[in-house]
Amino acid sequence: MLQSKLFYKTEKPDKSASRILTGEGQAISNELLVRAGFLDQLMAGVYTFLPLGFKVLQKIENIIRKNMESAPVSSQEILMPVLQPKENWQKTGRWQSLDILFKVNGSGDKEYALGPTHEEVVSPLAKKIIFSYRDLPLSVFQIQTKFRDELRAKSGILRTREFLMKDMYSFHATQEDLDKYYDKLIKVYLNIFSECGIGKNTHQTLASGGSFSKYSDEFQTITDVGEDIIYVCKKCKLAINKEIKNEHSKCPKCGGADFDEKKAVEVGNIFKLGNKYSLPFDLKFKDKDGSEKPVIMGCFGIGLGRLMGAVAEINYDEKGLIWPKSVAPFLVHLIQLGNAPKINKIAKKLYTDLQKKNIEILYDDRQDKTAGEKFAEADLIGIPYRIVVSENTRKSNSVEIKERNKKQLKLVKINSIEKTINK
Amino acid sequence: MLQSKLFYKTEKPDKSASRILTGEGQAISNELLVRAGFLDQLMAGVYTFLPLGFKVLQKIENIIRKNMESAPVSSQEILMPVLQPKENWQKTGRWQSLDILFKVNGSGDKEYALGPTHEEVVSPLAKKIIFSYRDLPLSVFQIQTKFRDELRAKSGILRTREFLMKDMYSFHATQEDLDKYYDKLIKVYLNIFSECGIGKNTHQTLASGGSFSKYSDEFQTITDVGEDIIYVCKKCKLAINKEIKNEHSKCPKCGGADFDEKKAVEVGNIFKLGNKYSLPFDLKFKDKDGSEKPVIMGCFGIGLGRLMGAVAEINYDEKGLIWPKSVAPFLVHLIQLGNAPKINKIAKKLYTDLQKKNIEILYDDRQDKTAGEKFAEADLIGIPYRIVVSENTRKSNSVEIKERNKKQLKLVKINSIEKTINK
Repeated sequence: MLQSKLFYKTEKPDKSASRILTGEGQAISNELLVRAGFLDQLMAGVYTFLPLGFKVLQKIENIIRKNMESAPVSSQEILMPVLQPKENWQKTGRWQSLDILFKVNGSGDKEYALGPTHEEVVSPLAKKIIFSYRDLPLSVFQIQTKFRDELRAKSGILRTREFLMKDMYSFHATQEDLDKYYDKLIKVYLNIFSECGIGKNTHQTLASGGSFSKYSDEFQTITDVGEDIIYVCKKCKLAINKEIKNEHSKCPKCGGADFDEKKAVEVGNIFKLGNKYSLPFDLKFKDKDGSEKPVIMGCFGIGLGRLMGAVAEINYDEKGLIWPKSVAPFLVHLIQLGNAPKINKIAKKLYTDLQKKNIEILYDDRQDKTAGEKFAEADLIGIPYRIVVSENTRKSNSVEIKERNKKQLKLVKINSIEKTINK
Repeated sequence: MLQSKLFYKTEKPDKSASRILTGEGQAISNELLVRAGFLDQLMAGVYTFLPLGFKVLQKIENIIRKNMESAPVSSQEILMPVLQPKENWQKTGRWQSLDILFKVNGSGDKEYALGPTHEEVVSPLAKKIIFSYRDLPLSVFQIQTKFRDELRAKSGILRTREFLMKDMYSFHATQEDLDKYYDKLIKVYLNIFSECGIGKNTHQTLASGGSFSKYSDEFQTITDVGEDIIYVCKKCKLAINKEIKNEHSKCPKCGGADFDEKKAVEVGNIFKLGNKYSLPFDLKFKDKDGSEKPVIMGCFGIGLGRLMGAVAEINYDEKGLIWPKSVAPFLVHLIQLGNAPKINKIAKKLYTDLQKKNIEILYDDRQDKTAGEKFAEADLIGIPYRIVVSENTRKSNSVEIKERNKKQLKLVKINSIEKTINK
């Protein structure tokens, strides 16, 4: 991508302005994501992903999809509707009880819910497909836009009214089978957060089950802008959400009694739904002995925008963002200093050659920016490798390579670049 | 994918039942897509894409994305919100004038539109990024869910209340530059429809510009379930929509005066917006001579679900769907006949081997279905290659290969399968 053509605009730091723009409780991640041109805010809690942000979102989406499709999860991707019939939400009582539910009037006095989650759609759908114990277990997921009428949308993309979510629903013949699947998913979730570069900061956290179940497991990423308080066991790193901490004086996993109190943001949440949604939708199966039983369900969510916000919140310095390679919008930021034809020729060739090798590259080809402006913006955007082509590097048939998270500059011969950068 | 684990259910043909289900004006494509387990209808005009349907959708999405990103289109992917502020829609007058607009009340007396199209978001967004003639031309696109409160949602996925759309917006310094880009896009669109397998049946069609512009160009696919009437020039294949046919006694392209009247469904629509949306949002740029001018805009849409419906509508026979390879959910449908261990071993090995070669394969491993049931379902689902492993084929170390759109059966040695099937 040529930077001169990129659909973005970076902003100068102006804390007062951006705090007014996005409301109080502003997360640094969000300020940086807006300033660096990854996001644009349309209104409180509602954002556009610009090309840089969309590329990060795609990387996160692909990491999640790969983990959902592969064994032992083996989930199948579907796409359920946003518009949902009122009747389904009345059946579970959530038309009245869920205060964040957006309600829409359509022509002919029709009323719809804008899906904040999809138990009310997936349960009656599964009823058309699941009949016998032989059909179980089954698991489906979608990556889809959700809506929640948050009274106060704050902390930028950490809490929004409209957001992309991966929601997976699993169906089992027995509680034991759900328990086994659920335990596997905990490991897969921790793996997803590691792949996205926030593994060390993210803790499995015992929590309340909200409107879904008694308890649930959250995945909480430690950050000072987090809205949740968690207690991390010093011994085994399991955490307990403050909301249920009084029920647990000791760590339920290792028995430890020493905890660190931390602020954190929830990036994932998984629930054992049991028969809570299969009963109202009469979702049952015929077991081996011929008896009919309700299907046992689990549900497993990850917020993609939140995850992106959490990655940014943990990976930045005073100059800007520092993307982990796995989710960076580009791997290489190629910067041409000076507009002399010889330098331009080298930079252009490098741009073409690296692209041919499937290296994702943003090429700062702008002629009206100073070296200082280009470097400052590269630091703000935070692409893993910065490669500089200049009059100086040309003389030695080299380029200057710097990793965003390191201080050191390396002069590298042009034919050794590929060996030096590590996908 | 093992068919015994696939999240789907085929239905027996029951015309009266499915017509009641989906209302009148039911398209055959939709009946087949529901019966074959690609789609599930949640309510009138609102569908879930099941795994088979989602795979087709992904293929179509990738064809569109590839064409949008590559030269000469060079558009950048973004993701704009569904929830849009009332104020933006008041600015263009469409809060009142657009009768299909879904309006949503949020907490604190807020009112939102559910985006049916995104001029009201992309124009003020572009204003933050475009300043000078040097910033032009620019083009962005998204693949995103749209909402339209259709009074009568009919013809299955050909007209729905919620649908995936690729909408692209381009920005230009002059009308001439837009005109050139627009002409390029016509060719790219025709190419997309060819790649999806409906090229021969799809015509560029002059049409009214609706609320966007005086004229527009539609892309109409000829089918008896289409809601539009078009007149196709016998000489050059350009078509004219009935709504403006009285303004054109001769073909504007070749001057021909002989037309065929056809029913058709609109799969794409492109508009020269000019300054219609840049004026209300004060989207202007500084030209070379220092003067300020409004940015000239174009907009370019394709409905993904509609395109899938049109592909199905054109590619079927009395037994079921016949997918073009480019958008088929799988390339190969492997069918095991009989449950003898020897046959099972051959089929399993073939399944693993073909997957390793990146051939997408659905393996009918079900033990409780007869050969007749398996063949009937394979014909209904419509995967391009059917490969049968049976006691008969085992004896000659072969498999039986049949293409869905041909009558002929071929006995092929196992080690020659890859040569025989053509991606």
